[in-house]
Amino acid sequence: LTYSATDIEGCLIPIGGAEDKKSRRTILNYFTHLCGGKEARIVVIPVASAFAHETGNTYCKIFGDMGVSNVECLHVDSRQQANDPVRANLLREATGIFMTGGDQLKLMSVIGATRIEDAIHHCRANGTHIAGTSAGASAMSRQMIAFGRSGATPSQRMVQLASGLGLAESLIIDQHFSQRNRLGRLMTAVALNPGCIGVGIDEDTACVICPDGSAEVIGSGTVTIVDGREMAYTDVYSAKGYSPVTVSGVNVRVLRSGAQDYFG
Amino acid sequence: LTYSATDIEGCLIPIGGAEDKKSRRTILNYFTHLCGGKEARIVVIPVASAFAHETGNTYCKIFGDMGVSNVECLHVDSRQQANDPVRANLLREATGIFMTGGDQLKLMSVIGATRIEDAIHHCRANGTHIAGTSAGASAMSRQMIAFGRSGATPSQRMVQLASGLGLAESLIIDQHFSQRNRLGRLMTAVALNPGCIGVGIDEDTACVICPDGSAEVIGSGTVTIVDGREMAYTDVYSAKGYSPVTVSGVNVRVLRSGAQDYFG
Repeated sequence: LTYSATDIEGCLIPIGGAEDKKSRRTILNYFTHLCGGKEARIVVIPVASAFAHETGNTYCKIFGDMGVSNVECLHVDSRQQANDPVRANLLREATGIFMTGGDQLKLMSVIGATRIEDAIHHCRANGTHIAGTSAGASAMSRQMIAFGRSGATPSQRMVQLASGLGLAESLIIDQHFSQRNRLGRLMTAVALNPGCIGVGIDEDTACVICPDGSAEVIGSGTVTIVDGREMAYTDVYSAKGYSPVTVSGVNVRVLRSGAQDYFG
Repeated sequence: LTYSATDIEGCLIPIGGAEDKKSRRTILNYFTHLCGGKEARIVVIPVASAFAHETGNTYCKIFGDMGVSNVECLHVDSRQQANDPVRANLLREATGIFMTGGDQLKLMSVIGATRIEDAIHHCRANGTHIAGTSAGASAMSRQMIAFGRSGATPSQRMVQLASGLGLAESLIIDQHFSQRNRLGRLMTAVALNPGCIGVGIDEDTACVICPDGSAEVIGSGTVTIVDGREMAYTDVYSAKGYSPVTVSGVNVRVLRSGAQDYFG
């Protein structure tokens, strides 16, 4: 791996879901290593999950099994709790934050524009590494894919957007990418947001993004980059409903473990 | 009117569409006055319109009839043209920019993330006033309502979002508001973007927004503010499709001409 814990601070590690939790744990090992290994202080945010307590406890146990002594779970069930300064303070000393899977729109409906969200941004600015799997990966985007349809062909109505955390300002992150055939919805999201870069991450795969915009793929699958920075044309405004949309001048790259990219 | 041309620079004037163009011209008069009256240098951007040349010429004629000597129309039909430095330069000396109606998603598909968009932001930062009617008003938002359904009841799928210009960072602007019964879609947009403020503007009505966040309504209709800054709860993530969505703790205000608000 190119990056090691001593090199960098404040990385984003969006994971495409279903990361290996039992055998090699390539991605989770990388994350804990980056956060300081046994010295890491990791806070798990399981708010996206419909079974937040179970999901949170599962990850806390995994990180504990991996030797991290300081792991806490941040449970919030309401926007009121997400505005509680005591809960937000829990994040203050974290070297790593891990956001679980579930529903990214639930995560944002509960923590969006609350003290918890503020604390996450504050942590990032201070060098905390932030990982998120599945819903937790999507929520890193500013223009977040809330939900959508499968399929390879872009169409206007196949993707619904909402506000994400905006940790990755111009990236639109999608997950379970090859497994759920999501190229069409990511192309649509890029067409609806000129200048953005779509990042479609497979299961058990992650894209490590450094604050300087450099990025590297880890894990067993691929990351598909739908780079709209030089988009030449789209008729997404005129091709209505579920009819096919034209998108041209978008640079698509498929990257496997070890491949690097630049989003700066 | 509270604000006069000598007071302020860099106002946003989103207009709800169908502003009076023939008799009292309250809103268009206010805009030209703000931009310097006869000394104003106004650039019309008609890109949203399906008949951009006709629409552009109509507004150029109106501003000319109102005594503004320096009015130009910025015609761009493609992203390539929108990246042309010569065209972008046309905006440089403007004291006012006027974006016409049409389709806000067409406007953004053509100028989003191009030199024209950069030039608009540059103008704003340098004190140029920016007005937009209908589509031109919606496009001022960061989280822009691209299109949606009518109706009073919010539902998850009734509004489609895309990237707007982001001139009004936390505002989601909607237009033809009472006339097209758009409360439901604006409530939904706010639920999908916690912390945002929805601004629903009637026809022949405008909301003058100063750089300090103070705002005042002008024109014959009302502006409906759907203030999500203190949103307490939404189940927009779990109420699927077109079933009704719960939104609570949102402060709704209806303001007529002369009423003031604060979005800071």
